[in-house]
Amino acid sequence: MPTSLTKESDVDVLVVGAGPAGLMCAMALARAGVNVRIIDQRPAKVGAGQADGIQPRIVEVFQSYGFADRLFKEAVQVHMAAFYNPGPNGGIVRTGRAPDVTAPTARWAFEMALHQGGIEQIFLDSMASNGVEVERPVTPTAIELSQDESVLKDPKSHPVKVVLHNLGVPEGSLDTEIVHAKFLIGCDGAHSWVRRQFGIVMEGEQTDYIWGVLDLIPDTDFPDIRNRCAVHSHNGSCMIIPREGDLVRLYVQLADKDVLDGKGRVDKSKVGPETIMEVANKSLYPYKMSTSHPIDWWTLYIIGQRVSNKYSVHERVLIAGDACHTHSPKAGQGMNASMNDTHNLAWKLTHVLRGWADISLLKTYEFERRKYAQDLINFDKKFAALFSGKPRTDDSDDGVSHEEAFQTFGLFTSGIGVHYQPSAIVDDRHQSYASKILIGQRIPPHIFIRAADSQPIQLQDLCPSDTRFKVLVFTGDTTNQLQLKSVKTLAEEMQKPEHFYQRFGHGNSSAVFEVLAISSATRWSRTTPMYLPSSDLTGRNDEDMYKRAGGGGYEAFGVDVHGAIVVVRPDGYVGTVAPLGNLEYLDDFLPPSWRRSPNQRFIGLITLRLITVQHRDSPSRYTTIRNACDT
Amino acid sequence: MPTSLTKESDVDVLVVGAGPAGLMCAMALARAGVNVRIIDQRPAKVGAGQADGIQPRIVEVFQSYGFADRLFKEAVQVHMAAFYNPGPNGGIVRTGRAPDVTAPTARWAFEMALHQGGIEQIFLDSMASNGVEVERPVTPTAIELSQDESVLKDPKSHPVKVVLHNLGVPEGSLDTEIVHAKFLIGCDGAHSWVRRQFGIVMEGEQTDYIWGVLDLIPDTDFPDIRNRCAVHSHNGSCMIIPREGDLVRLYVQLADKDVLDGKGRVDKSKVGPETIMEVANKSLYPYKMSTSHPIDWWTLYIIGQRVSNKYSVHERVLIAGDACHTHSPKAGQGMNASMNDTHNLAWKLTHVLRGWADISLLKTYEFERRKYAQDLINFDKKFAALFSGKPRTDDSDDGVSHEEAFQTFGLFTSGIGVHYQPSAIVDDRHQSYASKILIGQRIPPHIFIRAADSQPIQLQDLCPSDTRFKVLVFTGDTTNQLQLKSVKTLAEEMQKPEHFYQRFGHGNSSAVFEVLAISSATRWSRTTPMYLPSSDLTGRNDEDMYKRAGGGGYEAFGVDVHGAIVVVRPDGYVGTVAPLGNLEYLDDFLPPSWRRSPNQRFIGLITLRLITVQHRDSPSRYTTIRNACDT
Repeated sequence: MPTSLTKESDVDVLVVGAGPAGLMCAMALARAGVNVRIIDQRPAKVGAGQADGIQPRIVEVFQSYGFADRLFKEAVQVHMAAFYNPGPNGGIVRTGRAPDVTAPTARWAFEMALHQGGIEQIFLDSMASNGVEVERPVTPTAIELSQDESVLKDPKSHPVKVVLHNLGVPEGSLDTEIVHAKFLIGCDGAHSWVRRQFGIVMEGEQTDYIWGVLDLIPDTDFPDIRNRCAVHSHNGSCMIIPREGDLVRLYVQLADKDVLDGKGRVDKSKVGPETIMEVANKSLYPYKMSTSHPIDWWTLYIIGQRVSNKYSVHERVLIAGDACHTHSPKAGQGMNASMNDTHNLAWKLTHVLRGWADISLLKTYEFERRKYAQDLINFDKKFAALFSGKPRTDDSDDGVSHEEAFQTFGLFTSGIGVHYQPSAIVDDRHQSYASKILIGQRIPPHIFIRAADSQPIQLQDLCPSDTRFKVLVFTGDTTNQLQLKSVKTLAEEMQKPEHFYQRFGHGNSSAVFEVLAISSATRWSRTTPMYLPSSDLTGRNDEDMYKRAGGGGYEAFGVDVHGAIVVVRPDGYVGTVAPLGNLEYLDDFLPPSWRRSPNQRFIGLITLRLITVQHRDSPSRYTTIRNACDT
Repeated sequence: MPTSLTKESDVDVLVVGAGPAGLMCAMALARAGVNVRIIDQRPAKVGAGQADGIQPRIVEVFQSYGFADRLFKEAVQVHMAAFYNPGPNGGIVRTGRAPDVTAPTARWAFEMALHQGGIEQIFLDSMASNGVEVERPVTPTAIELSQDESVLKDPKSHPVKVVLHNLGVPEGSLDTEIVHAKFLIGCDGAHSWVRRQFGIVMEGEQTDYIWGVLDLIPDTDFPDIRNRCAVHSHNGSCMIIPREGDLVRLYVQLADKDVLDGKGRVDKSKVGPETIMEVANKSLYPYKMSTSHPIDWWTLYIIGQRVSNKYSVHERVLIAGDACHTHSPKAGQGMNASMNDTHNLAWKLTHVLRGWADISLLKTYEFERRKYAQDLINFDKKFAALFSGKPRTDDSDDGVSHEEAFQTFGLFTSGIGVHYQPSAIVDDRHQSYASKILIGQRIPPHIFIRAADSQPIQLQDLCPSDTRFKVLVFTGDTTNQLQLKSVKTLAEEMQKPEHFYQRFGHGNSSAVFEVLAISSATRWSRTTPMYLPSSDLTGRNDEDMYKRAGGGGYEAFGVDVHGAIVVVRPDGYVGTVAPLGNLEYLDDFLPPSWRRSPNQRFIGLITLRLITVQHRDSPSRYTTIRNACDT
């Protein structure tokens, strides 16, 4: 290393690696106003190829950050799956078609595909609007985590010391920097440097699957070329995934002997796009595929199915994405899981940094996401067995079918069915008060009608990823005077200083909580002012003016006329449900109650005044409408 | 005028005035690659206030240019209308509520509102992406139109000579320019300079209505403050229109004596925002309205209801928007009509400039849009009578109600019902072949399922404002072998050089026409390759995979199993319908057949090669999929 000056700096969060996991992390933190930096050793973001499948849940997550529209403009939608199996004449025949996604509650019930660079660009654009850019090519060369317990527990400390090396500066210039970070997030991929520095071990099967992946514009007579296909033949198997533009992605599983050299290492000279095309064509027979365009991208994808034994070192160094779990590409889960990791982590980091929660909140990150990764591996194994197993034919009933795999795992692969287990932030004891939404799962989409102006409003859009807890007060039947009285009492109680809403002081609570009221009143009936804090966003359990949308929300959520309170976490997952009057329970559940240290509240308030909180442009935020009685 | 140098230049189209009419014109032309300039005498675009109502048809038009999403982000939606009339106790009571828009086929069945500057910015951003900006402050000072008939008829001539004066350059610099234009479009408002230069007369009633208009953030106990309200009281009338953010617009009609000085001119010193507020409060009694914010904008709006006696001088100088028709603000029609004027005009200018049509095509602009303006005046008179008439109360049944006005004129005010009469570009002789869509009205929204990938596709989105005629081939029941045979025959015929599709030469036709095929086949059934030009965008008359969208299109359009061809004009209006096999009829109807001069085709082809044609990113444009038989 040439002699160089060294600068030193502090940062709240340093993200290492600007793939989908790292970018989701940095974007969400930047948007929350957190002091964050993100570095990547690559000189530029990926151009073509790489991961591309976008599952329904991630589309909802993108929407919660306000940029799902980019996907609808740039990505391709995949609605149908087709299944091919050996036919009587030696070639394949289509044995079935099915919806590509089996997730009835998905807001957008289809898969999307966009090359990884396109997905990354969406994050980069969002980050740029908050003044954060990826620093590249920058690589960490040394890392040290304080072992002093009092330092580790002090939310204001910077216990992580990292040496960064800027590979892009001219020789002789300042190319080294020492960064002191409160938190470091390793999103540096399957070969994670961060993971290895702390000796975190990847566990799981040792077999590495070898996949050939090819993005091309095909000329073909294969009729399902614009559908997602699982082709299972006596001459091998392949998968087809439609891509944006005219592209199509082929996945073929390769045999070791085709790819490895004598020492068990990949010999890329043994396999090229021609080989992948050849294998694909064998399994596609009697259909043919060729291309008259340059190959867009290809790779050999060699991956084991493993999950790391831990995700965190003292909740100060955390790893996410491929750094802690790797999967076969068959179900298109890897990138989605990675982005969901840091979507889960970012709000928790933000709450800890703002002093709203103890550092121990971060333990729920590993608890929730490691279990999911393990489930994913288990799923992948079953799916892989189906995929590589003996095909079912007319002669052989004991084979497996892809149809079964798709249908069985639909909720799982869509991401919609992800279910976080009870913890400090998931409490299902009162599940019965909203029996049809599952505590620990994401809040399902539903359209309610805004009382003030009868506009249909998507509930998920009222629960954006803005770091706030959403307290959905299902007021029940407020045309019943007794019920109305109990709602008014609740509203008065909620304003008292001993309850959660006023803990952060008058005027600050709306930065932490958003309270929304949803009446079971229907069209033309009296809508009642809710008197609840921020309750000008009251909704009705109703159809819109044109009977095109809305209606039936209480029924869909399993809430009865006595109402309930549904708490949605900042990441869109249902944290808990409470009986309408039980504020004490909510006081316990909501921040800053989690194992709060005695001096925590003060820090919270200080931080609170410094951050900018995004308010959605609400046409009904009137000082006085709360008091207007709609007769 | 100081001594100055003078430069001279040529332009294809010069647009005078950068309000909504002028901007729609310049945007559409710029997008089509037309050589266009737009000038405005104001140094900057309007900030607050001005026109704001956005009707359902204009939202569809914005969508056709690809920027309706801006409205959904920036504008407020108005779903409900409320009606107040005199009650028993001297104050007003609500007598009814209704959907704000009565237009069942509207793609978005509600009104929107956004201040005029916000609407203009959408156009400016779109234009900027095509490299066109408004030149300001620039004013025309002299204009001359050639009287030489051969010059006027020569599509390549520049018969309009305009002197422009740049008000923004420092004294002594070059501030005058002589521009020779092929066409000049006067969009310079109610006091149009262009109109006056050519002695075009405004016809209509001479009474000028005086309106007070006020944009404010209200503090009020009025319960319908976020709905559109017509308030009719014994103490005057007022209208309330919700606006973006927390704003609300009030309209009150003022008496002459309150506003005019002794000479019949407006005396703005006699009326201020306080007066408007006072009048509004009188009519709102017993409700109260005040504001604790600065007034956003206010004006006195003095307008007669007139339409100019012609819209065009030799089809070389044309006027649009307020320059040729003015309306009372009551139904929120003015700006919408203005934008629809130039939406109607722009594609015609483009086709003429490209040599695809004779200049006489431009006659249809006045024919179609002047009639609409007259209808609007007639509507306005009836509406005004209702609005200013004696209110209907419990005691008096012979008064009028606003409810009646809203319900009666819903289709008209929404813009959805606009119906162009037969002309060179509207031919309804074969209406019965698609009995439920009206020739001369805009193509209604409907979702079809794309055959290649089962994606639900909105038909209106397949008919963007890209200057192309859309030839929708409803193939009928292609599972019937006889029907399939006739579709194949049609496809072969259409490729022959004597028919419209090949008139522009191989490879060019897709710039003029888009041929789409829609089969009546349904889910899981065999979808048939259509063999039609550009027909890889085949659709099915089907529901999507999740039964969430689509289905019933043949029935909704009144097309039977024998099929039909529906021709949609570049502006989204149904030009004609033809029996499936009748290519000769289409050859007659479609360009460049309209009174084409003998040497026209050559010009057409030359122009064609120079323009860039936008192709939507279609995931199913495969060279070979046309030949793939989906079995």
